[in-house]
Parts: sequence; C-alpha cells; structure tokens
Amino acid sequence: MNASRFAFQDYYPTDVAHCYGCGRLNDQGHQVKSYWDGEETVASFRPEAYHTAIPGYVYGGLIASLIDCHGTGTAAAAAARLAGWDPTAQPEPPELPRFVTASLKVDYLKPTPLGPTLELRSTIAEAKEKKVVVETTFSAAGTVTARGTVVAVRMPEQLLSEQR
Amino acid sequence: MNASRFAFQDYYPTDVAHCYGCGRLNDQGHQVKSYWDGEETVASFRPEAYHTAIPGYVYGGLIASLIDCHGTGTAAAAAARLAGWDPTAQPEPPELPRFVTASLKVDYLKPTPLGPTLELRSTIAEAKEKKVVVETTFSAAGTVTARGTVVAVRMPEQLLSEQR
Repeated sequence: MNASRFAFQDYYPTDVAHCYGCGRLNDQGHQVKSYWDGEETVASFRPEAYHTAIPGYVYGGLIASLIDCHGTGTAAAAAARLAGWDPTAQPEPPELPRFVTASLKVDYLKPTPLGPTLELRSTIAEAKEKKVVVETTFSAAGTVTARGTVVAVRMPEQLLSEQR
Repeated sequence: MNASRFAFQDYYPTDVAHCYGCGRLNDQGHQVKSYWDGEETVASFRPEAYHTAIPGYVYGGLIASLIDCHGTGTAAAAAARLAGWDPTAQPEPPELPRFVTASLKVDYLKPTPLGPTLELRSTIAEAKEKKVVVETTFSAAGTVTARGTVVAVRMPEQLLSEQR
C-alpha cells in the first residue's frame, strides 16, 4: 500500500469527530483511517478476536461498519478535492466537510477469515458538492470477500449547528 | 411489543452461537435477541453512549449490524417454520438452522437519536429452505429512521462442518 500519510478522519472538525467507527476522539471505537492512494482510497483494520461471526470468520456488521466509515471519509476527501484541494500539490488535507450515509449496500461474497488485516480499497463513482458515491472492495489476505456501495451526503447544516 | 418470549438466537447450535452481533456465547457482543410477534419479528437494543455518530446520534455501523443480525435470526425462524415448526402451537423453537448474510442494504432516512431504545420490526418478504429475504423497519422513540433489506442464505455445510 503506497498511500498518503494523512488520514482523512484526522481532518474532520473537532465537534464531529466522535463516530464509533471512525472518530479520532472516540477512544472506544474503531478509529478507521482512510488515505489517498492515487485516484483510489485505502484503509486497513485489524479485527479483534471477539469480532467473530461463526468461529474463525469476521462478523458482517463489522464489515458493513468499515465500508460505511471508509466510504464517508472518502466522500469528504472527494468533496474537498472538488472544491479545489489538490492532494498532489498539498498532501495535508484542509479541514474536511463531514458526510453522512444515505444508503449502504454490502454484498458478502465469501466468508472473511478472522486473523489477517482487513483491507478496503475504493473508487469514487460519483462526486458532487453534496453527494458522493463510493464503491469499495473489501479483502483479507489478498482475497476479495465483500463489495460495498456507499451513497454519502453532506451533513445537514442543522445537525452541524447543533454541535456548535 | 407483544412478542413471544423465546429468542431465536438462543436456539442456534452451540458451535455457531458466537457472533459479535447476536451470539449468546459472545460476552463482548451485542447479543441481539429476535422474537415472533404474530407474522412479524421484533428486536430491541439499548445503545451505549459510545455508539455515537456525531454527538447525539447513533452511528450507522451499529444500525447496519442490528438489521443484519436480526435479519439472519428472522431468516432462521422463517426457515424452521417452513420446515414444519408451528410457533403458535409450540412457542419454544426447535434448534434453528444458521443463516448468513448474502447482501445487506440499509437506507438511512434520518438521524437516529442516541438515547431511546432502538426497535426493529421485520416482515419476511421471501422464504425458501436455503434463502430468506427480510425487510426491516428501524425506529427510535416511535420515529422510523432507517429501513433495511437482508438477503440471508443457509450457512454452507462446509462452514458448519469446520465448527464440528
């Protein structure tokens, strides 16, 4: 993985950085970190032994959660790029807009072994100022075990203002 | 909620009852419990304070996980009923077959407040011996905040035999 060293989630506004899946300020959460890798984005995650489905395999809720949070992170980066950020010229992100999930679809292709680091690799299928569609390939030890689609929308101002 | 008192997940075979979302043998997991309520199935869940998205709201990964596990539980009960179990005559389930998720779709309609007990109510859209489709309405304090569809398939014998 030859990715940028700046995680998108580290550039969310402080008052909306508490998500259990990806908030850097949630000590009990997964703290998913997403990065550019060229035109794609990547993330990885090491599951705990208790993240089991049937013994030996990762439970589907974790897979959905990782795809979800990596998807909204990717959406934030894509929107910032659309607004003028050039990650090639300026690798460190500006403060990123916060996106939330409108819909999540996960196809579980085969059981995901519990043990190897899990890897997510995404492409941006559609990017508008307030709506981004992210397609994700999910793999373990080089084998693709799931695919996901996230439709992410910019967090409504009303929700943002409640935090401020 | 006027539901049966026998949770489906309590009748999974012991060797496949460790799921983080719904396994009765996973002490660190969510232990989702699903019940018949007439032709529908129901489950409820009390989130923890750290299950946050942005402050004040439930994170989407938990919602996906609950819909997923309640969906596979409902699928197991539907398959058992198809195979002859009559929950009206015999409320306590037989040992239930284990279903896994082939696909999961969640539409997030509005933010889910973090605080009230979360409720899931499902209908069985399609039931075959090895494939069940479950439609779920997800609500908090009486307001529907998400809808989900789970396509569940009977766990492959190969995976089952690995556990035995």
